[in-house]
Amino acid sequence: MGILERHDTGAVAHLRLNAPERLNALSDEMLAALQAQFDALKEDRSIRAVVLSGAGKVFCAGHDLKQMTAGRQAEDGGKAYFKDLFDRCTRMMLSIRDLPQPIIAQAHGIATAAGCQLVASCDLAVAAAGTRFGVNGVNIGLFCSTPMVPLSRNIARKHAFEMLTTGDFIEAEEARSRGLINRVVAPEDLEAETAALAAKLADKLGAAVRIGKRAFYDQIEMPLDQAYDYAGQVMVENMLYRDTEEGIAAFLDKRSPDWTQ
Amino acid sequence: MGILERHDTGAVAHLRLNAPERLNALSDEMLAALQAQFDALKEDRSIRAVVLSGAGKVFCAGHDLKQMTAGRQAEDGGKAYFKDLFDRCTRMMLSIRDLPQPIIAQAHGIATAAGCQLVASCDLAVAAAGTRFGVNGVNIGLFCSTPMVPLSRNIARKHAFEMLTTGDFIEAEEARSRGLINRVVAPEDLEAETAALAAKLADKLGAAVRIGKRAFYDQIEMPLDQAYDYAGQVMVENMLYRDTEEGIAAFLDKRSPDWTQ
Amino acid sequence: MGILERHDTGAVAHLRLNAPERLNALSDEMLAALQAQFDALKEDRSIRAVVLSGAGKVFCAGHDLKQMTAGRQAEDGGKAYFKDLFDRCTRMMLSIRDLPQPIIAQAHGIATAAGCQLVASCDLAVAAAGTRFGVNGVNIGLFCSTPMVPLSRNIARKHAFEMLTTGDFIEAEEARSRGLINRVVAPEDLEAETAALAAKLADKLGAAVRIGKRAFYDQIEMPLDQAYDYAGQVMVENMLYRDTEEGIAAFLDKRSPDWTQ
Repeated sequence: MGILERHDTGAVAHLRLNAPERLNALSDEMLAALQAQFDALKEDRSIRAVVLSGAGKVFCAGHDLKQMTAGRQAEDGGKAYFKDLFDRCTRMMLSIRDLPQPIIAQAHGIATAAGCQLVASCDLAVAAAGTRFGVNGVNIGLFCSTPMVPLSRNIARKHAFEMLTTGDFIEAEEARSRGLINRVVAPEDLEAETAALAAKLADKLGAAVRIGKRAFYDQIEMPLDQAYDYAGQVMVENMLYRDTEEGIAAFLDKRSPDWTQ
Repeated sequence: MGILERHDTGAVAHLRLNAPERLNALSDEMLAALQAQFDALKEDRSIRAVVLSGAGKVFCAGHDLKQMTAGRQAEDGGKAYFKDLFDRCTRMMLSIRDLPQPIIAQAHGIATAAGCQLVASCDLAVAAAGTRFGVNGVNIGLFCSTPMVPLSRNIARKHAFEMLTTGDFIEAEEARSRGLINRVVAPEDLEAETAALAAKLADKLGAAVRIGKRAFYDQIEMPLDQAYDYAGQVMVENMLYRDTEEGIAAFLDKRSPDWTQ
Repeated sequence: MGILERHDTGAVAHLRLNAPERLNALSDEMLAALQAQFDALKEDRSIRAVVLSGAGKVFCAGHDLKQMTAGRQAEDGGKAYFKDLFDRCTRMMLSIRDLPQPIIAQAHGIATAAGCQLVASCDLAVAAAGTRFGVNGVNIGLFCSTPMVPLSRNIARKHAFEMLTTGDFIEAEEARSRGLINRVVAPEDLEAETAALAAKLADKLGAAVRIGKRAFYDQIEMPLDQAYDYAGQVMVENMLYRDTEEGIAAFLDKRSPDWTQ
């Protein structure tokens, strides 16, 4: 087993962070493994949804502080290494947004710092009851500035600011009501519930989900008028898919669509 | 009765989608009727609030799929028609934002796809308990890209993404807590409660509400500093209204204002 | 005692609006006093958190309407005075964002109009149960356009629009769930709870909180890719602080950090 396991079930790829003894830290090796998988998945039309989980007691505890500390031995005190590290981490996080498939974080135990960033960066998130979320770098003098980027786009400003400056954790139910995650389930149901959600997404027309996911993140950063211009073009393109024609025809005929995807 | 009923009560215009047998679909005719009303209301200073409701069992089930399917008969497979259709739909939705009066969606039954977009596009929304909201085009292979535009500006990202990719509905109470609607009332009180809210809005100083509504949507797309520059100018202009002078004087004198509006 | 009291407890500065007979209105004098304090605090590295509260029965009831009305006596009907007033008010509100220290609004009683804007403008807010929040200028014909700027960046659009156009108040618990405030506490615990939160913030590494607060408000207005570029640079800078090196080392050694701050 490598540091990042993958097994596919039908059109769903399951990625599992697999360094439980290091709380699935985002080490250089873990970042590289995630990047390689996202690069591969981006081109893989047979996969229509992705689940990201963690082995062991927690989902992910953020960056690998031992490895980062070792990086300080360089002549520049680690500056070049840190820059490269955060560049690689950011590239990986943005690959989640740029992945054509929807990706669901399956969180349990703890998701903290860059681990909380992973949850915030995924399109959707399901968590076991009792899971705690935090951006607590401030407690060791390292403000969670990069995790803040997706966090502050997921939840209300004051709630994000509180998490960032107090280092306090919030529990799953509060994370759900604030918008950081979508669903809270019993721990024993976590895997099955997340798999069911992934299967539901994978069952939709892949081309429609792909064009929709990209449009979601593109339009959200535009002024309203421009967002509508763009989304209108997407609708026209989507309407002209052969499978969409069939989907609408099937709906009007009250039968199941016969999709080619 | 036409496809879009209107009756006015005092300074409140009530528009009612009236094609219940087609679930009040946004057909070419319905879009044209709405556009005509919004164009007329834009110039009508005697109306100070608008309510938009639907006749029959549901508020609005979105676009007219039969009409759209018929559009495929054109030589270009419908491309020009679809482009024109979404352009007209977008123009109508933006006319809601550009309407000088506040407009309240009065939702019941179901508001789905472009029907949910209508709710999201209105300034305010009141729903009967049990009303369900969805953007479920993905179920027939047509991602709700245009409904996504106002929806993703009403509720948290992950919650919007879930609705868009699962096609699942949310109930009124959840829609309220997420920000898609303002109030949930008993079905038998829906009309009276919405009318009371509209009357309350209509009772304010019209010029202040007009300048405020426009400022609301303008400033929300600006960086903070620029938004303040703009809003400060609006405050000065508002302060110089004769009726605002009277409103403040009346407040200081503990009497009702004698407004000319 | 002046119009704005200040007393410091350790690294926490407590500012108290002290014009209870005028409901702590943001008069010319109060704005000037706040501006002077924020200008001083901006340069004061010994202060690491700020609390803003109000003396008497309410937190703050907004602008001083009597003073504004007196301003109408000028030849231009008050236009130049109003412009200057809102400029000064905006400058003060933006100074809150630009303050290097986190600042907590400690609200009780009522926070209305520009008083609600103060709460929305602070980084964090704690309120006594029963506190009511409103932007009710519309009731006297003066739409709360400047309060709208931070309010609409704190809570969902439809909820902000409702408060602005109805003038209705919301209670503390609802303000918390919507994102306008962080915590609701029993009135008798308000001062102690807010002080405890401030002390917690002041106990963090000041340099990390400073760089983090600035980054928070800077990145939130950027597109995602640009926000990440910027936040990544902040992380590198933060990693190179001597105290952050010590904070991480202490964490790995399971001991308390020995910070120079």
